[in-house]
Parts: sequence; structure tokens; C-alpha cells
Amino acid sequence: MILILRSDANEEEVAEVVRRVEAEGLEAHVSRGEERIVVSVIGNDTEPVFALAHLPQVEQVVPVKHPYKLASRDFHPEDSQVRVGPHVVVGGQRVVLMAGPCAVESEEQLMTTAAAVARAGATVLRGGAYKPRTSPYSFQGLGQRGLELLDQARREFGLAIVTEALDEEGLEAVAEVADMVQIGARNMQNFSLLRACGRLRKPILLKRGMSATIDEWLLAAEYILAGGNFQVVLCERGIRTFETRTRNTLDLSAVPVLKYFTHLPVVVDPSHATGAWQLVAPMARAGIAAGADGILVEVHPNPSEALSDGRQSLTLSDFAALARSLGAVAEAVGRSL
Amino acid sequence: MILILRSDANEEEVAEVVRRVEAEGLEAHVSRGEERIVVSVIGNDTEPVFALAHLPQVEQVVPVKHPYKLASRDFHPEDSQVRVGPHVVVGGQRVVLMAGPCAVESEEQLMTTAAAVARAGATVLRGGAYKPRTSPYSFQGLGQRGLELLDQARREFGLAIVTEALDEEGLEAVAEVADMVQIGARNMQNFSLLRACGRLRKPILLKRGMSATIDEWLLAAEYILAGGNFQVVLCERGIRTFETRTRNTLDLSAVPVLKYFTHLPVVVDPSHATGAWQLVAPMARAGIAAGADGILVEVHPNPSEALSDGRQSLTLSDFAALARSLGAVAEAVGRSL
Amino acid sequence: MILILRSDANEEEVAEVVRRVEAEGLEAHVSRGEERIVVSVIGNDTEPVFALAHLPQVEQVVPVKHPYKLASRDFHPEDSQVRVGPHVVVGGQRVVLMAGPCAVESEEQLMTTAAAVARAGATVLRGGAYKPRTSPYSFQGLGQRGLELLDQARREFGLAIVTEALDEEGLEAVAEVADMVQIGARNMQNFSLLRACGRLRKPILLKRGMSATIDEWLLAAEYILAGGNFQVVLCERGIRTFETRTRNTLDLSAVPVLKYFTHLPVVVDPSHATGAWQLVAPMARAGIAAGADGILVEVHPNPSEALSDGRQSLTLSDFAALARSLGAVAEAVGRSL
Amino acid sequence: MILILRSDANEEEVAEVVRRVEAEGLEAHVSRGEERIVVSVIGNDTEPVFALAHLPQVEQVVPVKHPYKLASRDFHPEDSQVRVGPHVVVGGQRVVLMAGPCAVESEEQLMTTAAAVARAGATVLRGGAYKPRTSPYSFQGLGQRGLELLDQARREFGLAIVTEALDEEGLEAVAEVADMVQIGARNMQNFSLLRACGRLRKPILLKRGMSATIDEWLLAAEYILAGGNFQVVLCERGIRTFETRTRNTLDLSAVPVLKYFTHLPVVVDPSHATGAWQLVAPMARAGIAAGADGILVEVHPNPSEALSDGRQSLTLSDFAALARSLGAVAEAVGRSL
Repeated sequence: MILILRSDANEEEVAEVVRRVEAEGLEAHVSRGEERIVVSVIGNDTEPVFALAHLPQVEQVVPVKHPYKLASRDFHPEDSQVRVGPHVVVGGQRVVLMAGPCAVESEEQLMTTAAAVARAGATVLRGGAYKPRTSPYSFQGLGQRGLELLDQARREFGLAIVTEALDEEGLEAVAEVADMVQIGARNMQNFSLLRACGRLRKPILLKRGMSATIDEWLLAAEYILAGGNFQVVLCERGIRTFETRTRNTLDLSAVPVLKYFTHLPVVVDPSHATGAWQLVAPMARAGIAAGADGILVEVHPNPSEALSDGRQSLTLSDFAALARSLGAVAEAVGRSL
Repeated sequence: MILILRSDANEEEVAEVVRRVEAEGLEAHVSRGEERIVVSVIGNDTEPVFALAHLPQVEQVVPVKHPYKLASRDFHPEDSQVRVGPHVVVGGQRVVLMAGPCAVESEEQLMTTAAAVARAGATVLRGGAYKPRTSPYSFQGLGQRGLELLDQARREFGLAIVTEALDEEGLEAVAEVADMVQIGARNMQNFSLLRACGRLRKPILLKRGMSATIDEWLLAAEYILAGGNFQVVLCERGIRTFETRTRNTLDLSAVPVLKYFTHLPVVVDPSHATGAWQLVAPMARAGIAAGADGILVEVHPNPSEALSDGRQSLTLSDFAALARSLGAVAEAVGRSL
Repeated sequence: MILILRSDANEEEVAEVVRRVEAEGLEAHVSRGEERIVVSVIGNDTEPVFALAHLPQVEQVVPVKHPYKLASRDFHPEDSQVRVGPHVVVGGQRVVLMAGPCAVESEEQLMTTAAAVARAGATVLRGGAYKPRTSPYSFQGLGQRGLELLDQARREFGLAIVTEALDEEGLEAVAEVADMVQIGARNMQNFSLLRACGRLRKPILLKRGMSATIDEWLLAAEYILAGGNFQVVLCERGIRTFETRTRNTLDLSAVPVLKYFTHLPVVVDPSHATGAWQLVAPMARAGIAAGADGILVEVHPNPSEALSDGRQSLTLSDFAALARSLGAVAEAVGRSL
Repeated sequence: MILILRSDANEEEVAEVVRRVEAEGLEAHVSRGEERIVVSVIGNDTEPVFALAHLPQVEQVVPVKHPYKLASRDFHPEDSQVRVGPHVVVGGQRVVLMAGPCAVESEEQLMTTAAAVARAGATVLRGGAYKPRTSPYSFQGLGQRGLELLDQARREFGLAIVTEALDEEGLEAVAEVADMVQIGARNMQNFSLLRACGRLRKPILLKRGMSATIDEWLLAAEYILAGGNFQVVLCERGIRTFETRTRNTLDLSAVPVLKYFTHLPVVVDPSHATGAWQLVAPMARAGIAAGADGILVEVHPNPSEALSDGRQSLTLSDFAALARSLGAVAEAVGRSL
């Protein structure tokens, strides 16, 4: 932490700051400039040091350390790999394709999709049994029946399953079927749910909140890691900006930024980010080119009749075409499908 | 809902859209322009109509109706009033002051603050027993002991209590003590928790999510109303923007916008929005001038030693001065404290 | 400036940073923590010190000083007052009402409006002769004829005139008629135009760019001040955010932030910010309550027939009502109309 | 344009809207729903129709047509190709590399860089002679001397030149040397400058404004096209969001969105967008994968001593490595360098 004092702070005011910092068991180094006095605090940032911002002689408080620890590359310099189901590894040399419908709607819909995405090269099947919906009047998912269908699809097609848990109560039921539990963007700072994920021994796919900074996202991951669960995969799915031609703005720069600061694997969801099926393929390719470890894509046998997110779902044949083109991009950046 | 078709859509393509709309039990009116064909859909918007965006002849889908119902002024034209505890009404002629520490830290801290804010004119005491914290390593609140202290403060000073519930599990414990339960910004779209609030028979203070549009916020309220709980107060607390001189950007225009679209009362929290105690008083005054039904302010006997949010807390005497000035502003807009 | 080095930087790497800082004629103080090494740079920030961010041992570069000087309260602690025309002072005890049509459309429209706003208490008439329009196909203003009509309105009603200059070429013509020259949001970082304003000896109304931080805005003002023209009034007119229920998000917190950092007067434009006439009156009142020195409002004798911005213009009688209510708010915060 | 009326609008109020629309020479079709009445306006949107939003019976005005014409694919369905200098085509099968220093600093710096980028495969040299700087105290470029050096580099290395013009006055001087004139982000809505570009017969590189929507950007291009200059290349360079780990947020989704709506070529600038050299290579690769026609990258022989933007410049060898990797990505998406 660095405290920037007003240049007209007198000796006693500077001494007060130093005293307060030392009272927290930390060290304070004072540097005097013509226009500002800088106090560098050595040791862990603590809340009471932040509160010194309230002293009149303190003009600004600048945090220095990354506030996360276990998620940081300082703590774990090598890339982490997360195993999902018996056969899939996220974060290794191979790029992982996760695909499936937004919501599980029926046996036919799910099995048709699962068969097609498996054939096209996906190794993880996505599909919501419990859906977080902005409106209470929208379709909320098939619930337990949806989980059963996902389980059936796993057995029939050998795909690993990722599906969302909305709350602590549902977490257990979801974790019984899922090979990886998704925590959605709206729950990224549902700290009770994150703590419950920390107690789980299943991989977690942690989506970025719509207005979460990268640091806040890593702190959300830290809640899970701090609970003892190190199997966390981050998923960039777009942030909220002023641009309305896309549903959200896919922040692909987050991929190399994360690769720099954290050891956790990162995947990209171009479907939710763009909200338009026409944009999914180019943005999936861009995600892999930016260094992502996988992509998460919505696929539906008949998008114009989907119960949710039809406008951003790929058809089965469009997904197969995308998968083919992704192989070439992966190779161009030294990876494979 | 309005569907905008490509101008080169042929007869059969237009007919397909009409057929699909009618299959949903809705009516379709076609207007042909030189450059676009417009299909107005009469009746309730349904998900399958949205999904028509996937048809190649459909260029854009424009929702027309407000997606919320019970929260709308169309449904309930008069202002709603929400009773908090035995004596306080939010949404009436009197502007309500809600004040107290960010977190309950100790008996002395809470009682000192409660006494002072009551004396200054506040009628509701705020204070967190359970704190949602961005970092797992920050102070997380006193929990049950915090609730007991709030209960004690209510008895001693006759203040109504508002405090936050973080999850369904904690909701019951909080509701036993609180006169109004706060749902924080990070939980605004925690739909399981919102549904649980709908089953409660206590007023809910629903804070706006950091990146929630006004429509999404009203849909979150709709989850509570749809559950049968009509005692909802909305709280504007700043949205996330690019500006970093304030912690968030207080969106005061939301106050008159809400007053236009909804009957629910609206209060303003200038402390969390600005993140700087120096800005709290002017923004509290601006909030009342904009038409808010109350303000929610952080107050601490010794902000530079607070365990959380010290930098944005008012001292006891600064709060008393603010309260005095708010009376004059309230009168200037035809209200009173 | 503060340089934060990686904790594993070795002696030679730290020494290299110190050497480079000293080569710029600055002093460097090194503080070593367990996790980071902090180098405080004493003296003026220079571009080459910023570029040290490129060294592998440098993790972060944190600017400390305000980058503006003449605009800063450090330089000029008292509030500045800007005289506009013979009778109006912006930044004094009296709050200033500036009102008029978005664009000058005709003699009748302008004179009717001028008479009405003068009667209601406005002392400055606004009205665009040259209009910056997002589309090349929109009405671009009456140009020179518009300036002549503004001049006529000044003579007839004793109002000071504020009108926009779009480019250096037009600046001279505008400055001949205007008592204050407006630089619009889209030109806030048109540095050639700002420099030309610095050479002018007329007050400048500098609108905030739609995505300008407060610091960038003050640096834009600094361009004008550095040219020798100290008569600058800042105008908050909304920033771009994700919220679409208003055209922009009026950032009223900017008012007290500016009052803290700069001596320049600040006015608020609720018309452009909200884009909806229904929101103008409450946000004008909120602006005054937040501490603004004046408001700038669009008024039109017949808004539903305006050639631009009709949807956000007040009628003559709505403006008169607003003006009455603003007096009470001004008094509530210790000022007058 | 679509007008949405309140459901309780009476016959006379609906008739008034229809009358007003017809008075503009347009057609109006009325569709009545239970909750809203929709009036579809057939013909060109005009400002007076927008102004009908002011009528009390009008709840919302929804524009339908793209507001740009010449920039639209409706007008020109095939991809446009823009020739820059004698040898370079932007928008064809080959992806174009544009590289060079942020600012021209000296003969040695520019020639060293030009030689290296030419050798690595760049065909366009970038470099600022006139620099728009946020602060009046920053280095503002070498001006005319910078242009002379660029001219010399062109002759020596056979590179086409792109450099920025800041104002109408400078435009002529710049256009004499430049093969393509850059209009920077801050000037994207400097309409006088755009009009002057429309009169020029040189290609224009139009950077996206930091808070410009894609539609506004295309309307800015429309100003140039409407003046008769059809040689416009669009450059995505990041938009302003809340995320601070990157300088701006590179909006790569804009690339396929633009490819859908316009025929103009699109290039990507990952240097300004990210503000960090470590992120430039992955984002350049992502840009090509997303479908961009070229990239614009900052390169400096010694970035840690650059006079501007050192922290985001690549070294000569890092650029050479990037260029090699871009070839593979280009091939993966069916293009070549």
C-alpha cells in the first residue's frame, strides 16, 4: 500500500500516519517530494490502513499488491491444468470445445445436439437444467429432469458435462451429475455460493461477472481456492459497455492479462458475449488466437425454435464447420484440438 | 414485440414469420416500407418470438412492452408506501434518513452511532452483520452477534433496523431482527434469494446491481412482487463506469426515471456510490432534490479506524450537519424530513 | 510517480531503474517490501519515466501528481469567477440560468424563447448557430444568420449569449457575437481548437467529453489556461454508460469532485444528459443541490416541432415553473438565483 | 421509424400522430395491441418525427433504418478495397501489416524502425509527426520535420506512409506526404475535419472514438463518403470501459459486426487498445482471426526510451516474431500476409 499525503502536511501529521501504520504491525517508509509526500507501507494491506484515507492529510491510498494470493502466478508459477471427467484436461496443449444448448429442453433436443457436437470434436457438453432468467416469467429450466437427461447424454456419447448451479441448495444435486459445475456471471460475487464451491471436490467453471474487473474475478476465484478447491477454470463471457450492436462486449484482452497474472485456465464464451449467432464463429477463432484454453458455445438443432437464447445458438452444421476451422487456428498458435 | 424484416424478404418469407407468430397465439400486422418490412406482434412477448431473430429474413427484434408487470405504474398508478417498523413510512411525504455504520463492529461503536443518528433525525439504523466482501481475506462481519447488537439498538433508541442478508440460509435469521432486509448490489440477480424474499413478509431494500439497467432492476423487484411480497424499496447506489475519481457513478437520473415507470419508493445511497466521505453530503442533497424518498448513509464514530468503508463514512457531527441541511432541500421540493 | 518493481528484481535491476530516473534529473527513493519493491520518484513526472514500464523488472507505474497545474486548486485556492457579458458572473453566490433552443431555427422561434426565458429569470441565452450532428444528413444550423439572430436577441432582451464554435475557422465569427463560446463534448479533445480558445479573450464553456475522465477534462481546460485564457467554465453534460433509459448518464458527483480539485466554475446541462424533457427539471434541481454554479437548459416554444432535440426541450411554461423551483433549492444550499 | 403510443391514447391522439407523420410526406400504419399502439412510419426518418416523442401520447420512438447510407452494404454489397500508395491494397485477400513508432522522434529512430518493419513484412509505415496529447505539457511531435523524415523513409524502404492530421490546417501538409491520412479517435466526431477529408483524394484511416458506438462510427465515415471520398479504412482501437488492467477494451466483435453492415475495410490497433506491449501480439493474432484486414502496431527500437507510448511499443525483434506468427493465423482463416 502507498499513502500519498498532501505536500503541506506538517511533521506531526506525517508522524501520525507512520504511527498508525506501525500500530498495524507494518513498516512505513517516508519519501518527501516538492508536491507530495509518499509513505510506502511494507507488509500486508489491511483494512485499517485503507481507512487512513479519512485523515485530512492523506490525499490518496494506492494498493500495490495483488489482493489475491492462491490464484496468483507468484504463488503457482506454472499453468494449472484442470481435469474434467475422465478424459478432458483444460489448460494443456489441447484446446477444449464445450458445446450444447443454452437450456436442456427435451430428450430429443439434447441427444441430437450431443451426438452432433461429439461428432464435430467437442469433448464437453454444456446445457442448463437450472436457468437464471432476468424475468420471473421466462422459462426457468427443466430442473432435476434436465440433470437426468445430461447424465444420459454423458453415458451415451462419452462427453463430460458442465451445467450451472444457481444456489447452495441446488449445488449438491448439480454436482452429482456434472463433471464441472458452472457458476454464472450473475453469481460471480455470490460469496456464500463461492464458499460452497470451495468445499466441493469438483471443477468449477467461473464465469466473469458482467461488470467485474479482472481483479474482482480473480478474488472470486480466490474464495473457491481458499476453500481448498483448486480446480477452477475461468470463463470470459463479455462485459457490459455502451455498445449495443452486441449483447455484451467480449473482452478478449482479458485472456492474455489472465495468463500473465494467474495460473488458472481460461476459456471464452462467444455466444453469450455477442448474443448473435453470426458473430460466434469469428469470435471463437479470435478467442483461440488470443490464447484461450477452450471455447464454450451454444448449439441447438433448431435455433429459431429454442426456448432460450435461440438468436445466439449455432445450428449443428454451423458448429461442425466452426470446429473444423478452429483446428487450423489452434495450430497457428502452437496448439491442437 | 416488433420484428423488422429485410426489405428483400419475399412473400413466402414474410408469411413464414406471420405463421410462426400466430402459432404462439399472437397476432401479426405487416407494414411494408421501401427499405424495411415491419411486423408488429400484438400480445405478450414470448421467448419463441425472440428466437425468430434466427431466421435469415429477420433483421432485428425490438421488444415494446415493459417486461415487468407488478412493478409497473400501468399496474399500480399510485405511489406505493412501504412501512418499515412501527413508525417509519418510505414513499410518503416525509423523506426518510437511514444511517449507521457499514459493519457492526462492537457494542460501543453501534450504540454510539445509533444514539447520534437518532438525535440527528434518522429513523432507520443501518449496519451490516453479514458483509459481502470482494476478498475472502477481508473482515466478514460479526454475524449473529451483530444481529443481537442491532436488536439492542432498536430497543434502546426506537430506530427501525435495515441489515443485509447474503443468502437464503441467513435470510431467516436476518428477518427475525430486521425491520427491512437489504439485498445488496452483488445479489440483485441472485434469483433464488429474490424468490425467498418474495415468500417473506418483511420489507426488502433492493439495491441496484453495479451494472444493472433500470429495466433489469425492476425485473429483479418483479421476482419479489411475483412471490407475493409487495413491500419493496429500491436503492440507487451507483453504477460502474470508466470514471475512477469516484468508486461508482451515482446515477441520480434513475430516480425520476423510476418515478415515471414504477410505483415503488426509491432511496439513494451516496456513500457506496462515491466512496469518499467528502462527496456524501452534496450527493445526499442532490438525491433528495432529484425526488428520492430517502437516503442511506454510512456513519461511524471514528471513520479512520473503521473495519470497513472508513473512507466513505461520515463522522457523527458531519452527519448531524448533513441532516440539518437536508431538511431545507426537502422543503424546497415540497417535502419534509 | 511511483514505480513498483517485481519482488525478485535483483540489485542490478533496481540500480538500473534508479540510474534511469536520475538521468531525468529526478530523485529516486527505494523501499523494499517482502512482495514488492517500491521506487518513489521525486520531481515532475516525465514521459521517459513512464516508459520505464517497459523494463521487465517494472510491474506497474503509478502517477501521483495531478497532471494539470493552472486548473488546480493547488495553484489557485480560491474559487474563480467568470464574467459573461456585462452583467453575469458564473461562480459567485448567485446561481446562473442559461436557457434557449438547441438550434436557432428562425427569428420568431428565437425571440419568443428569449423573451420567455428572460422573463423567467435566465440571464444567458443559449442557441446553436453551428450544430455538430452525428449524421451528415441532419440539420446543421443556420450558420451566420443564426449568429445575427442571437445578436439581435441580446440587444432586445439584455441576455448574454453562449453559442458553440465547431472549428478554428468558425471560432472568430462566433466570438464576435458570443459572450461565451461553447466547446462541445465531441470537441473536448480537439487540441487545435482548444489552443485557439487559449488565444481568445472570451469566456469558454467547456463541455465534458462523453467518455472523458475528470482528469482528462481538466487537462483539456489546461490547454486553454496555458494559452493565457483563464475564463473557463466547465459543463457536465452526461457520460456514456450502459444505461439506455437516459441518453447519457448525468454524473453529478463530478460537481463536488471538481469543486475539490479545481477553482473553475461548474455548470450542469440536464437536457443533453437525460435526452428526455420529463427528467430535466428534477435533474436541474439536483445539479444545484450538488453545488453547481448554474444550469444550461434547452427550451423551445413548441418542442414537438423542433428541428433538433425536441424530445429533451422544455416548453416555455415548463421552464418558468422550473426556474421558480430552482430558487428554493438554491436557497436551501445557501445560494440564490 | 416506429412510434409506440400509450395504450390509453384516444382516437384523436392517435389521429394527431398520423397527421403529423403524413405532414412530413411519410406514411403511417397503425397496429393496436392490448397494451400498446404501434405506429409504423414508412419512408425516411426525419428529425420532426423524432420530435413527436414530445407528445404525451408517444411513449417511445424506435429508429429502424441504419442512419448511414453510402457506408452500408445495402448500398454497396461487395467488399471495398482501398489502395494505399502504389503497392498496398487494404481489404483484399492479403492481410496488411502497418507498423512503426508512435511518434517520429529522430532520423535514426525512424530509419532503424522502417528498415526493420519492412524486413519483417510490413508494407505500411506508421509514425506521428503531429501528436494529439491529453496534456499540453507532453511532447507534441516534430511537426513538419517529422513529415520530411517519413517521406525519406518511404523513398528509402518503399513503404507506404500513414500519419495523423489533427486539424484542417495541417491536413494539407500531411496529405502531401501521407499515402493514407489518419484521423485519430479524439477527432472521430470533429465534423469540420471529416468534411475536409471528404474533399481530399487520399485514403483515410478513421479510428473509432473511445466511446463511439459502431453506428456513430459509420456515420462519421459517412461524412467522408458523402463528400466524395470513398477511400475509407476503419480502425478499431479499443473503447472505454470500467476495466483498468488494459488502457482500453479492444472490441474485436466490432470486426465481424462491421463486416456485416459495411463494405469498408477494417483494421485493428492492439497497441493503443491494450496499452501494454505484452498484450500486443496475442491481440494482433486475435484481430486477424476475427477477420480484420490488417493490423496497426507500434514498434520502437528502444521502447523504454520512447518519447511517447513506450510501454505499449514492441521491440524490433518482437515485431519480427509477431509478423511470423501472423502469417499462420492469416492462413488459418483463408488469407495470407
